[in-house]
Amino acid sequence: MRYSQLFAKTSKTAPHDADSANARLLVQGGYTSQLAAGIYTYLPLGLRVLDKIKNVIREEMNALGAQEVLMPALTPKEPWTTTGRWDEIDVLFKLEGHGGKEYALGSTHEEIVTPLVQQFVKSYKDLPTSVYQIQDKFRNEPRAKSGLLRGREFSMKDMYSFHLTEADFEEYYERAKEAYFNVYRRCGLEALIVEASGGAFSKFSHEFQVLTESGEDLVFHCTCGFAQNKEIAEVKEGDTCPKCGEGTIKADKAIEVGNIFPLKSRFTDAFDFKVAGPDGKPQSVLMGCYGIGPSRVMGTIVEVHHDDKGIVWPRGAAPFDIHVVSIGGKDPDKVLAAAEELVKDIEGCGLEVLWDDRDAPPGEKFADADLIGIPLRLIVSEKTLAKDAVEWKERGSEKTDLLPKNDLLDAVRAWVGLRVA
Amino acid sequence: MRYSQLFAKTSKTAPHDADSANARLLVQGGYTSQLAAGIYTYLPLGLRVLDKIKNVIREEMNALGAQEVLMPALTPKEPWTTTGRWDEIDVLFKLEGHGGKEYALGSTHEEIVTPLVQQFVKSYKDLPTSVYQIQDKFRNEPRAKSGLLRGREFSMKDMYSFHLTEADFEEYYERAKEAYFNVYRRCGLEALIVEASGGAFSKFSHEFQVLTESGEDLVFHCTCGFAQNKEIAEVKEGDTCPKCGEGTIKADKAIEVGNIFPLKSRFTDAFDFKVAGPDGKPQSVLMGCYGIGPSRVMGTIVEVHHDDKGIVWPRGAAPFDIHVVSIGGKDPDKVLAAAEELVKDIEGCGLEVLWDDRDAPPGEKFADADLIGIPLRLIVSEKTLAKDAVEWKERGSEKTDLLPKNDLLDAVRAWVGLRVA
Repeated sequence: MRYSQLFAKTSKTAPHDADSANARLLVQGGYTSQLAAGIYTYLPLGLRVLDKIKNVIREEMNALGAQEVLMPALTPKEPWTTTGRWDEIDVLFKLEGHGGKEYALGSTHEEIVTPLVQQFVKSYKDLPTSVYQIQDKFRNEPRAKSGLLRGREFSMKDMYSFHLTEADFEEYYERAKEAYFNVYRRCGLEALIVEASGGAFSKFSHEFQVLTESGEDLVFHCTCGFAQNKEIAEVKEGDTCPKCGEGTIKADKAIEVGNIFPLKSRFTDAFDFKVAGPDGKPQSVLMGCYGIGPSRVMGTIVEVHHDDKGIVWPRGAAPFDIHVVSIGGKDPDKVLAAAEELVKDIEGCGLEVLWDDRDAPPGEKFADADLIGIPLRLIVSEKTLAKDAVEWKERGSEKTDLLPKNDLLDAVRAWVGLRVA
Repeated sequence: MRYSQLFAKTSKTAPHDADSANARLLVQGGYTSQLAAGIYTYLPLGLRVLDKIKNVIREEMNALGAQEVLMPALTPKEPWTTTGRWDEIDVLFKLEGHGGKEYALGSTHEEIVTPLVQQFVKSYKDLPTSVYQIQDKFRNEPRAKSGLLRGREFSMKDMYSFHLTEADFEEYYERAKEAYFNVYRRCGLEALIVEASGGAFSKFSHEFQVLTESGEDLVFHCTCGFAQNKEIAEVKEGDTCPKCGEGTIKADKAIEVGNIFPLKSRFTDAFDFKVAGPDGKPQSVLMGCYGIGPSRVMGTIVEVHHDDKGIVWPRGAAPFDIHVVSIGGKDPDKVLAAAEELVKDIEGCGLEVLWDDRDAPPGEKFADADLIGIPLRLIVSEKTLAKDAVEWKERGSEKTDLLPKNDLLDAVRAWVGLRVA
């Protein structure tokens, strides 16, 4: 992709109301545009990042054996009254259609998925089963804030699993935890698994929290793996860890990037979703739910991976693999031709390239590349061409290497391979 | 994919309220599940089809040079009042959030895209530009009907182009027509381009109509290419064609599967979106919009391509390339092992296979395969194994061929290649 042709460019000025690094840097980098509080448009660069994160999640959910479906956002009132949540969920957007028909915009989909799965699960032999969707959700937030972290419309991967026995549920729940860690690792995030409230019907649920100063949650944790969120914490900072008996509890701010929840039969009972067990007797179906918000993951990555110049994307979430910057000179056409050839060669390896082909000063191009934050930058100029080489610079590092063009494709392949692994 | 593990299966009984072939067959085939009038869940098979159609559209829009963005569904009232359409669009779903803030669910996105593009287009040198999104839209339909054809929530690809001159707009508009024809051809639809009303600000717009008895539109057309919809028709059935002067006008029912619209400066003027032209004088930006609904295309394909047994998917929209049916016998394990090997070999060629691996009577499997409607079926049984062969049956044809296993992969590759071309 030629940067000159890219729709939506970087901006030197920060939005006046940006209350967080992601709100500021995603707009300045040309990734998002704010339409209203908590409501964003994804520009071409931003949609590329969002889709990469969605695909990482999709691959990990498919590997778990879950199957993708797509439920509507516009949902009728009836199933919400069946579970009692029409009045219980205070952030539910409600609206009325022709004939006084009442709807809610889905902020979660237990009310939709439970009767859906009930349609198709007729016997214990059809269990376990799990489905997920990646779809936009809506929350009537009193105060949207922090860019993509707390929005009124946001993308969500919500998975729901259905089981005959507690043991089967627990086995799946553990496997889901591993899948979640895979997602975060591939997106360049280190997440802690943290005990959280299980609501009225389960002892615990679990949150995945990324420690960062800009987080609005507070996590009490020990190096042994013990971690609780502040709502349920039985410890305070400096306490000896109740789990390992050795470590000292630390308290850190964090962003919640996912949660998984044992729902027991809270929703299946509401819809009278029972199956005949092996003994012929009707049994409540047990259920779990598992959420990750791709847009929130995107915002969190920016909170964690940026410097004073802009975003520093981890490889798995970058909009392009490589940013080629060509620097004109006395013979700009010669440099452009060499850069074009380089871009073709790299794209021929199956890699994605953003090429800054503009007629602009080097300083402006480098500042834009810093804002955009693609992890690997290759610079082509008269100086490098004279040495039959290319400058290699990794985002976030001050070091620049001169690499012979002959070695370049192998080096790029190895680098991308390393970062993917 | 093993059919035994697929979430959501076929159903022998038609939904009681199905008012159209697509409403009935998509539910019976296990593609969709109706949540409320005009609101559907896409089951795994249905989501595969929907995504294939979206990807065909995406490829053709990218080839036009348009760039993909993603705008929100939840949109604030202000831009709708700016254009006067808050009160003008009668199907706009309206809702209220915290603090009395009013929103509309986007039924179209001129109000959002125009100020968005205005942010980034500062000079005539930034024109032309075009962006599109593939996103769910909402319409407060008084009467949702015909399955995926007239829904309250539905997927839409909406593209918007921006131009400095009428000539530049017209050139793009013609190229967009070709891209649209490519989409329909690849989805197995024959579309007519039909003149339609241009509203208050343009002489004509154009609709793409697929002739079929189940359509709710009426198109007057001649073999020479002349075609008008009933709202603007200056002819009646049996008239001599006013364009070629030779053909006779026919009137046929049709489904609208897309429309393209010269918007002139209707929306850009409302937002005072002007650029300085080459002469330095401010000039109104001209705009076009271009819509195709992937879910409506999906419904239309089913209306056109089905028989009394079920759907007959065209290759470009089928959920899988090939349906392998294994038929047990005296030694079912032997047949299953052979089928598994066959499936692996075909998947090794990069093709997608649905394998009916159930322990079920052949008649049931064939009836389900007919309902599902994958275009090519391969049958493995003790009878075919004894001849070291596989039965080859194309959906919609009564003919079955016996094909030696050695020739199979070449034949499958050639068949898929043929259907794609």
